[in-house]
Amino acid sequence: MRNVTPDNITDVFTGYFGPETDPRFAEIMSALARHLHAFTKEVGLTHDEWRAGLKAVEWAGRITTPERNEFVLMSDVLGLSSLVDMINSHPGATSSSVLGPFHVSNAPPMAIGDDLRAGFAGEVVLVQGHVRDLDGKPIPHAELDIWQTAPNGLYSSQDPDQDIMSFHGLMTTDENGYYAFTTVRPVEYTVPTDGPVGQILDAAGRHPWRPSHLHFIIKAPGYRDLVTEVFPADDPYLDQDTVFGVREDLVMHYTPQPEGEFPDGFVLSGKVDGPWSRVDFDFRLVAC
Amino acid sequence: MRNVTPDNITDVFTGYFGPETDPRFAEIMSALARHLHAFTKEVGLTHDEWRAGLKAVEWAGRITTPERNEFVLMSDVLGLSSLVDMINSHPGATSSSVLGPFHVSNAPPMAIGDDLRAGFAGEVVLVQGHVRDLDGKPIPHAELDIWQTAPNGLYSSQDPDQDIMSFHGLMTTDENGYYAFTTVRPVEYTVPTDGPVGQILDAAGRHPWRPSHLHFIIKAPGYRDLVTEVFPADDPYLDQDTVFGVREDLVMHYTPQPEGEFPDGFVLSGKVDGPWSRVDFDFRLVAC
Repeated sequence: MRNVTPDNITDVFTGYFGPETDPRFAEIMSALARHLHAFTKEVGLTHDEWRAGLKAVEWAGRITTPERNEFVLMSDVLGLSSLVDMINSHPGATSSSVLGPFHVSNAPPMAIGDDLRAGFAGEVVLVQGHVRDLDGKPIPHAELDIWQTAPNGLYSSQDPDQDIMSFHGLMTTDENGYYAFTTVRPVEYTVPTDGPVGQILDAAGRHPWRPSHLHFIIKAPGYRDLVTEVFPADDPYLDQDTVFGVREDLVMHYTPQPEGEFPDGFVLSGKVDGPWSRVDFDFRLVAC
Repeated sequence: MRNVTPDNITDVFTGYFGPETDPRFAEIMSALARHLHAFTKEVGLTHDEWRAGLKAVEWAGRITTPERNEFVLMSDVLGLSSLVDMINSHPGATSSSVLGPFHVSNAPPMAIGDDLRAGFAGEVVLVQGHVRDLDGKPIPHAELDIWQTAPNGLYSSQDPDQDIMSFHGLMTTDENGYYAFTTVRPVEYTVPTDGPVGQILDAAGRHPWRPSHLHFIIKAPGYRDLVTEVFPADDPYLDQDTVFGVREDLVMHYTPQPEGEFPDGFVLSGKVDGPWSRVDFDFRLVAC
């Protein structure tokens, strides 16, 4: 087309696809172009603003490494990552939520009742529940990959003072779909702010905090993998997670428990002094 | 908001803006998020597709240098760069078109009638015309920054065998707004295809070619700068420029001229053997 105009450019773009193009690829690229064109026209993007956008992605490119991915973070703070999680969640199943960059493969196996604290002090939290299907039926032998921040706000991969497997563990539910472990509370933390995403948050008057959370990847044969996080109801950032990860069904409660009544069946049974708290949380998986 | 859903995520995003946010920044980011969210929902983007998109931008980041900007190229082949050019063009003025990455600052001055060929052989082309305002009144002393490919398809900055100022020149119109120079025909060329943009073009069944063109940046005191390109009517890629740069008013014609009648007033006057061709092209600038 020799007379490209703001009105026809999306059609010209779509018209350039070859006849052999994979239909799904064409669908995605056409929709992406249509929405980017509509955005550009709607705001009347200037050359200076276009260049500012390019500078942000160029900067993201310069600082992205296997350990730190600024593009994923950009997707996170724009709500894109969470939106992909949500539209791929099954209604009725536990919502999925942001995987994040701190998962470590091959976490050490834990028995039911084991302790995840890795030597850190703090009030003990007992976390327990069941993995179930959509009818509420327990799923035996489901695998839970569990990780969280240490009380210093750092994941093991961010903290040279922690072993890489600190606060990471792999647990399998029993015949009744039951899991249980002890830990200390994870804490809220900020996403990295020394790159373009930090500048965008700053310009938007947004804070970089995430509410504290426990991460889970749950797998069971015959069921769809669930990547999710659970958040305590009393977290100050619960209503303003900077990466949009919170869903109503992912909110948990720390229930205070009186001193001296720690249940049996845990490696900490009989060893806990002082008050502790308890979280009961069930997960629901959808069959695949 | 603790209950983020696909339906409310755009509102939640917008609600996070602080009260001091620059209104234009908020407008742009809100529109960008709204369109990206709509895109994601409309196509039902999967996690695998989201990851494929991230891999493309990560790859672009790894290969982008001051000399080669894969993000600009991505913007180009998506039609975004041309759309920004078009919506910032003034109706009635000559359309603006892609600046591209091959402009060199401080091109050597040329007198009216000078030759741009830099020693390359080929049929001589005489290019001439006027720079005018929207009423057709000539603009004296307008500056034309002119550049093009050599006949080997390379710009000077791509070609170690060319001087960096080869096929670059800076001309000033006379009292009548007139400019004129001789050159050889620029040739069509491909955008770089060894990065993610090449993969996208390939997957879309699109070729990487641009029609041949002469580049101009035209400046005159009291007028808006014009960044543009002009394309010959007989170019095989005129109707399918892979970066969407062609506009109807940017099409020029090589008019064949009989041997032995080369006009006066050129450094080549009296030296041209064989047929040559002529391009007449006027530019119109809008007052600022």
